[in-house]
Amino acid sequence: MISRYTYGSCIETGAVPEKPEIEAGALPFFVVDEEQMTLTYRMAEHDRVYGLGENLRGINKRGWIYESKCTDDPNHMEEKRSLYAAHNFFVVDGSETFGVFVDYPGIVSFDIGYTKMEELKIQASDWNLDVYVITGMDVKDIVKQFRKMIGRSYIPPLWAFGYGQSRWGYRSEDDVREVVKAYRDLQIPLDSVYLDIDYMERYKDFTLNQETFPDFPDFVEEMKKENIHLVPIIDAGVKEEKGYPVYEEGIEKGYFCKKEDGTPFVAAVWPGRALFPDMLNTEARNWFGDQYRFLLDQGIEGFWNDMNEPSIFYTEDSLKAVMEKIDTYKGKNLDLDSFSEFQGLVGGLSNNPEDYKAFYHDMDGVRVRHDRVHNLFGYNMTKAAGEAFERLEPDKRILMFSRSSYIGMHRYGGIWQGDNKSWWSHLLLNIKMMPSLNMCGFLYTGADLGGFGADTTEELLMRWLEFGIFTPLMRNHSAAGTREQEVYRFGNTAGFRHVIGLRYRLIPYLYSEYMKAALRGEMMFRPLAFDYPDDKYAAQVEDQLLLGNELMLAPVYEQNARGRYVYLPETMKMVRFKEDGTMETEIRPAGHQYIDVELTDVVFFMRPDTLIPLAKPAQCTQDIDFEHLELLKFVQNEMASYEYYHDDGYSKDYENPEHLSLLFSTTEE
Amino acid sequence: MISRYTYGSCIETGAVPEKPEIEAGALPFFVVDEEQMTLTYRMAEHDRVYGLGENLRGINKRGWIYESKCTDDPNHMEEKRSLYAAHNFFVVDGSETFGVFVDYPGIVSFDIGYTKMEELKIQASDWNLDVYVITGMDVKDIVKQFRKMIGRSYIPPLWAFGYGQSRWGYRSEDDVREVVKAYRDLQIPLDSVYLDIDYMERYKDFTLNQETFPDFPDFVEEMKKENIHLVPIIDAGVKEEKGYPVYEEGIEKGYFCKKEDGTPFVAAVWPGRALFPDMLNTEARNWFGDQYRFLLDQGIEGFWNDMNEPSIFYTEDSLKAVMEKIDTYKGKNLDLDSFSEFQGLVGGLSNNPEDYKAFYHDMDGVRVRHDRVHNLFGYNMTKAAGEAFERLEPDKRILMFSRSSYIGMHRYGGIWQGDNKSWWSHLLLNIKMMPSLNMCGFLYTGADLGGFGADTTEELLMRWLEFGIFTPLMRNHSAAGTREQEVYRFGNTAGFRHVIGLRYRLIPYLYSEYMKAALRGEMMFRPLAFDYPDDKYAAQVEDQLLLGNELMLAPVYEQNARGRYVYLPETMKMVRFKEDGTMETEIRPAGHQYIDVELTDVVFFMRPDTLIPLAKPAQCTQDIDFEHLELLKFVQNEMASYEYYHDDGYSKDYENPEHLSLLFSTTEE
Repeated sequence: MISRYTYGSCIETGAVPEKPEIEAGALPFFVVDEEQMTLTYRMAEHDRVYGLGENLRGINKRGWIYESKCTDDPNHMEEKRSLYAAHNFFVVDGSETFGVFVDYPGIVSFDIGYTKMEELKIQASDWNLDVYVITGMDVKDIVKQFRKMIGRSYIPPLWAFGYGQSRWGYRSEDDVREVVKAYRDLQIPLDSVYLDIDYMERYKDFTLNQETFPDFPDFVEEMKKENIHLVPIIDAGVKEEKGYPVYEEGIEKGYFCKKEDGTPFVAAVWPGRALFPDMLNTEARNWFGDQYRFLLDQGIEGFWNDMNEPSIFYTEDSLKAVMEKIDTYKGKNLDLDSFSEFQGLVGGLSNNPEDYKAFYHDMDGVRVRHDRVHNLFGYNMTKAAGEAFERLEPDKRILMFSRSSYIGMHRYGGIWQGDNKSWWSHLLLNIKMMPSLNMCGFLYTGADLGGFGADTTEELLMRWLEFGIFTPLMRNHSAAGTREQEVYRFGNTAGFRHVIGLRYRLIPYLYSEYMKAALRGEMMFRPLAFDYPDDKYAAQVEDQLLLGNELMLAPVYEQNARGRYVYLPETMKMVRFKEDGTMETEIRPAGHQYIDVELTDVVFFMRPDTLIPLAKPAQCTQDIDFEHLELLKFVQNEMASYEYYHDDGYSKDYENPEHLSLLFSTTEE
Repeated sequence: MISRYTYGSCIETGAVPEKPEIEAGALPFFVVDEEQMTLTYRMAEHDRVYGLGENLRGINKRGWIYESKCTDDPNHMEEKRSLYAAHNFFVVDGSETFGVFVDYPGIVSFDIGYTKMEELKIQASDWNLDVYVITGMDVKDIVKQFRKMIGRSYIPPLWAFGYGQSRWGYRSEDDVREVVKAYRDLQIPLDSVYLDIDYMERYKDFTLNQETFPDFPDFVEEMKKENIHLVPIIDAGVKEEKGYPVYEEGIEKGYFCKKEDGTPFVAAVWPGRALFPDMLNTEARNWFGDQYRFLLDQGIEGFWNDMNEPSIFYTEDSLKAVMEKIDTYKGKNLDLDSFSEFQGLVGGLSNNPEDYKAFYHDMDGVRVRHDRVHNLFGYNMTKAAGEAFERLEPDKRILMFSRSSYIGMHRYGGIWQGDNKSWWSHLLLNIKMMPSLNMCGFLYTGADLGGFGADTTEELLMRWLEFGIFTPLMRNHSAAGTREQEVYRFGNTAGFRHVIGLRYRLIPYLYSEYMKAALRGEMMFRPLAFDYPDDKYAAQVEDQLLLGNELMLAPVYEQNARGRYVYLPETMKMVRFKEDGTMETEIRPAGHQYIDVELTDVVFFMRPDTLIPLAKPAQCTQDIDFEHLELLKFVQNEMASYEYYHDDGYSKDYENPEHLSLLFSTTEE
């Protein structure tokens, strides 16, 4: 059951398409303090808290304070409270079990046992919020109710389940050709190459660098013949430049966000001075969405939306103020305090909270200061694209994922898990984030495999891919200036071919699971606790995941490890794919155990009475044979069956019953 | 056997007091490339590499590249290559087993399977190095030979094994009194309070803020009556200030490091402009050491040396250059490149490599540019103090530990493990660093418990203390601006009292183990692999430690965990101390297993036929009864014995045979 409670005068976020009626009574579970703008719940000692989508720390969020404040900060250290998204849905599970969605577009914090170990405190920046409280049979039921309320998750084209190679630094058509050739020559499967900011003319959205990408439609076509999709990046900021049509038209029509005095707000991002389209204004949003046509018309079928927190390197005004302050330091003895101030001022130019209070949206007639709706910006940029794709390409699925997001955006696109780093701890964070994101409707997601910032290692990349082959978005991406991390830069080609190859054998299963999760409002990835609610050890597991109803994953995520501990809540069949092409299986009893996992082994566990369809090897999704499938089987009782979803992968008649078939088996042979 | 090979013309570091003769033949194990200045060893697939002292990443260092370059950088993220120290000793263990010490005071990197998974490559900045190759029966034997060669490790007074409370931010005598009162009132044991930079007059070494610490000798005495030792910080940089005697005398006698033109090198640290005493010059070092008398004379018996990498916030010259460059940005459109440059210039003012090439040492007549001997600075600051203590207080042990260090410094003081953060991963790093540091001679060590930077949580602090009660240096320390983290700031007073209380019961054992390790050149903390060399699982364990010959530690280091996996290489007795004062024991079979560990449980494992002496509870080391000890016993065979070291804890007749006695038992009753 979902009950809605409203405080103050809420700004419409669009997260909940059809809202339930407002309840008259008091908010259950919480103590409400209007003056402090807090909701407080007293947790029992062993209560667990799940959710909050893209975030730091554990599957169980207890023990830290989180802030929904979309932020472009590349150092995701443990001390941080925010990443790029705002996903205000969580479930308390324990002595009482209930879900909460705080539909609120401003900055809000969730203190989950940080200040006091037993206290969960939600604090909003102002007192205008919709609070949904959801009760149900169990956590899965609560999540399912929530997912139904927020609407169906985005569905990408099938090719987007292939492996993608990306790097900030592919500067020309030849750079891209070299990548594709290396993969094809080594027979390592690949479906897409991503274009980062390098493809544009001086970082201008919806332009092409004519020197380095001179024949773009031909090049797109050439790549398609190789079964490679090019996926260009789109940034939130539009360069300020006379004669640049997007800028000129936006200015002329008044589509950019404005300062209090009504003049355009000028921030700086990649191109230097830039303006933000008012994504919260319907007309401006439609206009921005229409710009994607520039690339669609050249054969592009997928995009990623970046910098849409929105990221601000600096603003004209703040830079001027800092420069003036710096003048006053000259010739002085800068001690601890003044020197810290100096470095802080310059470092603090970027993503400065004051700048987010300096511009306004025109929400279809209502002027709203940006900070009050900060967390909706990236969402609405992606909505701009998603709505435009419906208009421009109504019969085709277009790949779209975003860096910033809010619940509601899950209907228009996926997300990648932000600009992570080549840290082992970020591989673990990737694992932990999957179920939290699924709870909030984000199914098409994955992390930058191998790590975006900092230098990767061969071992880290291998282990990360061994997990990444299970995530819907499977992309290897890295930043300019870091170690080159295409898999062919490293020694163990056979190992990488084996691991990525396995992805392609799993795609019929993974795609089927994705589609069922999207169409039914279920989670593709779940913590063990969700399926084994009475198991006290399952409740504590933070580094294993359930995938669909069939699999349990237990990835290796530690340097030099050649094995790991695994907890089995019940008897399972361990399946091991080895680099030499062999597969080994072993039935393992329930309980705690240690398993060996050599560097290129891919291991997963099958739950009793399940089947996994497995395709023959393929070099791209186009070549996958979805009909002639091998079945991995673990038949414990009389029969195992699998509900298999398959469609053409690009058209939109998702609900066609012909897409579903039942595979079954009574024996393991 | 130790063999020494020399390349070029080495700068004397003092790490090896009595050097073996130089070998004439070729360096074994390695391929030497003089042109590239590299030594390369080809590792077998399962070789492990131990050592490198204070460093990032695993107990097994394989899989990353490390750089010996003492650096003051507060963000110890996985991508970093250096911390505050340079400890160039490691052991390769596997198909061949040998130790290597690169006695070299400049910057040197250790690529241990980073560039190529099978390659270990040492690269020096110039070609003047002493390389010691050590072979022996096993890793422990190799380490013991190395430790014997570098000389006996520093021995602190007994009270330094008590618990210490520290914070950057105790601004007055009353602040300190409040801390002490809170501990004493709650009956949580405490032996020392640390004074950070706040106690000085405007960050001037060897001064006191007369307003906030007006009657210092009386205050020191007052604290001593409470059995509290005050431990002030000493910084490397001496403030440039007319009339400040240390500055004036240093200038007059020419004791500060100089620029190429012979004028004093002015850098900036806490007080702003400051000068570095030339710690590598005997006369200047003696002079600086003598300054400690100012505080010794007021009753102080312990110090910590900070900022001695040396840390440089900026230099006069570099600040001027940056300010000029900033002027050129004015009025321009700063795009990605120029804005990154701007922020990089200002951020890069601190600890800039160029600044370390801009000053010189007078090494008793030989002028040496700082970067060539960079890693010796902190070492020699601590040597200055250590030698002075021998002169000024010959009959008493003075507590001394340093942030920066090089091998050789271990004879003069301990180290703390740098300015860590309140991250769970830093608790784990603390665990991993203990054996690596012991290998390099650093026995008196520990991390800032609860974490120095960033905000701690009650749970993190509790878990960290549960490990910290076993480390010789046991100090809770935190930075200004972070959450207050004295244990009494949190709810579970009984839990903290129980955990810290147990430390005091263990001190007879811990002190005895420390003294034996120091006097015999052994490791107090060891990886499991060192004692169980043929056990393939022991070789992989990265989160358990052996302590002495008796204990195995398996700390909990994950948020919300209420248990963990443990590997037992042999049958052991699990001992659990519970908050309610009870103790439970259970004999556990060898193998992999999961153990429950409630939040305030302290659990360790006893190896077969061992005894652990346990004192009665005490509120300070002064009150510990070292004579009437309870014995924890695990008698598997005929008899268990324990070699117990005990002395008065402050005098220096360490080798007196009367300090040793044999405890034994034939039964567990």
